[in-house]
Amino acid sequence: QMSSGVQQITMIPGDGIGPEISQSVKDIFSASGVPVEWEDVDVTPVKGPDGNFRLPQKIFDSMSRTKVGLKGPLATPIGKGHQSLNLALRKAFTLYANVRPCKSIEGFKTPYNNVDLVTIRENTEGEYSGIEHIIVDGVVQSIKLITEEASMRVAEYAFKYAHDNNRDSVTAVHKANIMRMSDGLFLKCCRHVAEKNPDMKFREMYLDTVCLNMVQDPTQFDVLVMPNLYGDILSDLCAGLIGGLGVTPSGNIGEDGAIFESVHGTAPDIAGQDKANPTALLLSAVMMLRHLGYTEHARRIEVSAFEVIREGKVLTGDLGGSSKCSELTQEICRKVQELA
Amino acid sequence: QMSSGVQQITMIPGDGIGPEISQSVKDIFSASGVPVEWEDVDVTPVKGPDGNFRLPQKIFDSMSRTKVGLKGPLATPIGKGHQSLNLALRKAFTLYANVRPCKSIEGFKTPYNNVDLVTIRENTEGEYSGIEHIIVDGVVQSIKLITEEASMRVAEYAFKYAHDNNRDSVTAVHKANIMRMSDGLFLKCCRHVAEKNPDMKFREMYLDTVCLNMVQDPTQFDVLVMPNLYGDILSDLCAGLIGGLGVTPSGNIGEDGAIFESVHGTAPDIAGQDKANPTALLLSAVMMLRHLGYTEHARRIEVSAFEVIREGKVLTGDLGGSSKCSELTQEICRKVQELA
Ligand SMILES: CC(C)[C@H](C(=O)O)[C@@H](O)C(=O)O
Ligand SMILES: CC(C)[C@H](C(=O)O)[C@@H](O)C(=O)O
Repeated sequence: QMSSGVQQITMIPGDGIGPEISQSVKDIFSASGVPVEWEDVDVTPVKGPDGNFRLPQKIFDSMSRTKVGLKGPLATPIGKGHQSLNLALRKAFTLYANVRPCKSIEGFKTPYNNVDLVTIRENTEGEYSGIEHIIVDGVVQSIKLITEEASMRVAEYAFKYAHDNNRDSVTAVHKANIMRMSDGLFLKCCRHVAEKNPDMKFREMYLDTVCLNMVQDPTQFDVLVMPNLYGDILSDLCAGLIGGLGVTPSGNIGEDGAIFESVHGTAPDIAGQDKANPTALLLSAVMMLRHLGYTEHARRIEVSAFEVIREGKVLTGDLGGSSKCSELTQEICRKVQELA
Repeated sequence: QMSSGVQQITMIPGDGIGPEISQSVKDIFSASGVPVEWEDVDVTPVKGPDGNFRLPQKIFDSMSRTKVGLKGPLATPIGKGHQSLNLALRKAFTLYANVRPCKSIEGFKTPYNNVDLVTIRENTEGEYSGIEHIIVDGVVQSIKLITEEASMRVAEYAFKYAHDNNRDSVTAVHKANIMRMSDGLFLKCCRHVAEKNPDMKFREMYLDTVCLNMVQDPTQFDVLVMPNLYGDILSDLCAGLIGGLGVTPSGNIGEDGAIFESVHGTAPDIAGQDKANPTALLLSAVMMLRHLGYTEHARRIEVSAFEVIREGKVLTGDLGGSSKCSELTQEICRKVQELA
């Protein structure tokens, strides 16, 4: 949005390895010279006067000022009734589209090569409605909620994303053969938006068929759009194809702001030991830079990260190396400065 | 169940390529000398006096006599309100566990080797309840129904299957972090059965994590048990790992009978041209033979089919060859007789 002046960014470092990898991203941004200012925010829920826990006011204040956040992994507080904090944030800021690009990293040994696809997941409803009932003892129902509003919103976003990123096709993923009304409505919305975008190729495919085809040849897919749970499943499957959650970025897009996040865990076993892999958070930060219009910084940082991985000399344990988080960070900083 | 005398089997040849591949299985059974008699049944729905379509009486009569069916692919009748016939059969005979073994075929070029796992899918409820409502225009809900009865039944079946087949572990697949009540109940039932089977290793894993781990290293899995939709997704994913639906068998186990079926489509484009691949139906028939206690015939037919595929000389188009269905069938018959 602004490429001069200083961009404020809300930073949620998160738990476990979160602070280390957040620091890594800050260091690499400094090396690249992106004109940003970080506002660190702790999102640990606080007890309100009614006894219920809620997100602290500061995250709302900060996000309403900056409109953009970068977020490390969050631990879910122990205790019944505590919803995942990750989900609480998606809900609090109506982050309606979860965007996860999966692109093979050249030279990085993974099961598949030449993968280059993006899953776009409806992020506010579906199987994540949170509405569940015990009908009688031993009989439970969970409600999958599909609305025209949310389906249209994410379908429109998917086509816009496909256009803006020079993608070839959008595939709607569904089980409308089984959930005729709910997935049927989702599919109808996708078809409607497809008709308004005749220049973009549109396909429809059953979720089970997508999974089968995905493991046989992921290169046949481009942009995929789908209801919430299907996106949860498919984005992890696709991450697996190219090296796992340690190297896959994600962005949550909303009407009044966006939060970019790494979707791996907090890795408490290695937290504080300078062993964490900052790549997923860094690539999420690269998505954020593109979202903000800093395309040149984004390109430079991305190229540097990919090159360091391809060279394979300075890698953290999970990437098959034995270097420290800080060493990998310094190596990427060096590349970024070379490219400047 | 009986290994002397003649075993009656209900055969639902199905649509499209169904009749050809059914004939192939019959020919191979003859070559092996399994003492069976086939009763062919057409399950095309018939209009009842109330104007509704239903399964013909003959399938109920036949199944209540034989207790076991083999089924080719079925086309879903066109028109609103027509449920998938495949589902109608699962429902009509309360076939509560859908069992899909995925085993790499040695020498057959597929993305993965040494896969040897079994998905066991709850087959009667969950997201397949068929209960959906329009709340207001543009707002739809689908109900996922989880009961203790069905969850216990399939969990018990999974552990029994794991024991009977000398398996090492059972993994319960769920999203109880999101659907706390419904998947929570399913998981509780699995834990309960696991406690009663302390000699069998038990694991729990989120569906998204299973998908990620599955594409990274499927050999870490053994028996997996899960609610209906998750089984639909995961069984197709796993089939993709070892060559697709053309080589993966399936069985639907009920209290009063079982139906074994190939889960690929009717392939109308090649129907009647002697080009179809009978392998999935044949391997389903092998599962059926084991279910009936004809383990020696089962072994002989399975070994023969795998050997023909491994040799790679007589394969149908979808398997990378150019032979006819009848030629592949004859080749398998020859092997079966050699092994007799
Ligand atoms: C942590 C969990 C609640 C979350 C989800 O299910 O959406 C995660 O799997 C994800 O994909 O971000
Ligand atoms: C044909 C379809 C209704 C079915 C399902 O969704 O269960 C199929 O995908 C399967 O796995 O047998």
